[in-house]
Amino acid sequence: MNNGFPAMIGLDKLILLILRGGGSMKIVTADSACSILDKDLMPTNILSTVAIVVDFPYQTPTAVQARDGDYSIKDPTVLVHELRLCEELLDIEPAECVHFDLTLGGTNLLDITDEFLFQLNLSPTGRSVLHAILPDLREIALSIDEKYHAPVLAMGKRSLPVRIAELYASAHGIARAMGIASVLEAEESIYLGLPEKVLASFDEEGKVKVTSEEPMEGSLVAEAPINNGVSVEPFLNPMTRGFQVLKLTKCDA
Amino acid sequence: MNNGFPAMIGLDKLILLILRGGGSMKIVTADSACSILDKDLMPTNILSTVAIVVDFPYQTPTAVQARDGDYSIKDPTVLVHELRLCEELLDIEPAECVHFDLTLGGTNLLDITDEFLFQLNLSPTGRSVLHAILPDLREIALSIDEKYHAPVLAMGKRSLPVRIAELYASAHGIARAMGIASVLEAEESIYLGLPEKVLASFDEEGKVKVTSEEPMEGSLVAEAPINNGVSVEPFLNPMTRGFQVLKLTKCDA
Amino acid sequence: MNNGFPAMIGLDKLILLILRGGGSMKIVTADSACSILDKDLMPTNILSTVAIVVDFPYQTPTAVQARDGDYSIKDPTVLVHELRLCEELLDIEPAECVHFDLTLGGTNLLDITDEFLFQLNLSPTGRSVLHAILPDLREIALSIDEKYHAPVLAMGKRSLPVRIAELYASAHGIARAMGIASVLEAEESIYLGLPEKVLASFDEEGKVKVTSEEPMEGSLVAEAPINNGVSVEPFLNPMTRGFQVLKLTKCDA
Repeated sequence: MNNGFPAMIGLDKLILLILRGGGSMKIVTADSACSILDKDLMPTNILSTVAIVVDFPYQTPTAVQARDGDYSIKDPTVLVHELRLCEELLDIEPAECVHFDLTLGGTNLLDITDEFLFQLNLSPTGRSVLHAILPDLREIALSIDEKYHAPVLAMGKRSLPVRIAELYASAHGIARAMGIASVLEAEESIYLGLPEKVLASFDEEGKVKVTSEEPMEGSLVAEAPINNGVSVEPFLNPMTRGFQVLKLTKCDA
Repeated sequence: MNNGFPAMIGLDKLILLILRGGGSMKIVTADSACSILDKDLMPTNILSTVAIVVDFPYQTPTAVQARDGDYSIKDPTVLVHELRLCEELLDIEPAECVHFDLTLGGTNLLDITDEFLFQLNLSPTGRSVLHAILPDLREIALSIDEKYHAPVLAMGKRSLPVRIAELYASAHGIARAMGIASVLEAEESIYLGLPEKVLASFDEEGKVKVTSEEPMEGSLVAEAPINNGVSVEPFLNPMTRGFQVLKLTKCDA
Repeated sequence: MNNGFPAMIGLDKLILLILRGGGSMKIVTADSACSILDKDLMPTNILSTVAIVVDFPYQTPTAVQARDGDYSIKDPTVLVHELRLCEELLDIEPAECVHFDLTLGGTNLLDITDEFLFQLNLSPTGRSVLHAILPDLREIALSIDEKYHAPVLAMGKRSLPVRIAELYASAHGIARAMGIASVLEAEESIYLGLPEKVLASFDEEGKVKVTSEEPMEGSLVAEAPINNGVSVEPFLNPMTRGFQVLKLTKCDA
């Protein structure tokens, strides 16, 4: 009945194997979020990048580094910026590996060859974008490998730490956008687009709380202090399901 | 580091651009829902079509037009019927664009050429269906363009207004099916299939409340008054995950 | 306007058709779950297989058969084991059809020909796996057909009963893993991986409760009695979103 496939494995052997191993590892990652929307409610730019370190039980970061961003939504160098921020954070808080915000099945960045990319069946645009930033990414990955012995893995959307970083980047981006809105003329508005399946709520104490609507992720939360003097009207983007928009208006003082 | 991609964009310019724009727009759309299931719990027909107008904050329609339908589940002319209902509603309540229940990346119906369809890589059936109804759809889209200057966009499943219309079509279809069940013989039943990730609940005051189980859509709700004298047994369709079925039985008077 | 597609169907005819039919059917199915994870939090084996019978309203099984498993995660004969368990359960509790844990559009196993598989566009690995176990599967399906006149349908992930079986296999697998953990040395741990979008919670009375985080499936639940003397630390797998892991540690007595 075994048909040449691996035979049944004795359970005892497996457990001993486990006990010598880990399951707990420190991971550094970064992600970007939040965009000012145009009149058709389409994203134009990226407002915020955050790098974090997470450790078991992978719920709340042990370190957070937030940065303002001003990238066009079409500018792939934001990925280079993210990896550089990971390297900076590794200097402060060591970690065993980097989860990089590019979804290529967890491949080590240093193992990505031209042949590998050729087999990926990317769109012409996707390929040219990757080719353009890959030299910079490899250089940083090599530096991270030399200094911290941490592999940079192209985990992308599959990685939970990347998602946690996205929630923190959302909180930071909302705080920044409310700062921008607070210096508008009274009654003027900007529309802020959040990442997919991310909800923002606002409490009485001047904080924004960002949560994930993705199944299984109900326990994740990121917070940031926010500006007063700005009114927030949340709504769902009619042009694309699953995305919340915040209409931010300078209050009439 | 810029690699020939768009340079960083000054944030001030972006904001000024936004303030001249909108973000608030009236959208008309229509969708169909609810099917009487056969003995294998597969859909056979379409019971209900509803057109709506939504405006900021895109939560509750400002106008609703419900129609009984009796289309076979395989009959694509239901799409023609939906677009005609949008045109009728535009005559009562103007809107800036039409979200059409066909998922083609938001393309304007008037821009869909044979070459465009050829590149879509559709199945032979899908292509022949589209070819069959496209002349009627184009004629209505042209009439809408001339009379109301509103583009008809093939947004389909990505559109939130299409989803809201689906919830209203569900509520109307459930009310209609309960009317049908109320004239059955006692103890006779029909099985009513609802759209994907749609839940119906029934209150004491003779109303059905329809909600979405899709992440982010917990705030959407549609209601309709219903017949008494019909018992409802809700269950999940065992043949296909994510779909609720209502077993409707004439109560023994 | 009809364009050669099926004409509108009179509703009365449809209803009469329905009333002669069913909508209620007994279904037998089996699924496997729970894996001890390696140090990279990747699954290594399969701990538990459960067969169930469900009937209208498809919420709670009317019969449950749980079995310990010790299959490598790469061993496809677990599917043969599942179908054999279905056959055993049919001997105790008759059912009208078998939902088999292989996603091939609901095709009857006896209708799967080489030509059918060729057209499926499977990966080379997937094809060789299927070829290896198909003779055994066909033999069991033939025996089920002869003895119980029940077709074996390759419903896989679309089937609600398969999902219910997965929840019961999870509860059984957790109970088994806690039994294993209870004989470890104090402070030793194993990491147990649960299926996608499955959550475990533990009550004061010594039971594990397994629920689904999939939309629409909030009413499904499976339970099993568990060992005391083992501490449980649940966390989300950082390597792959949507999966819960239980860290099981022998308590210091």
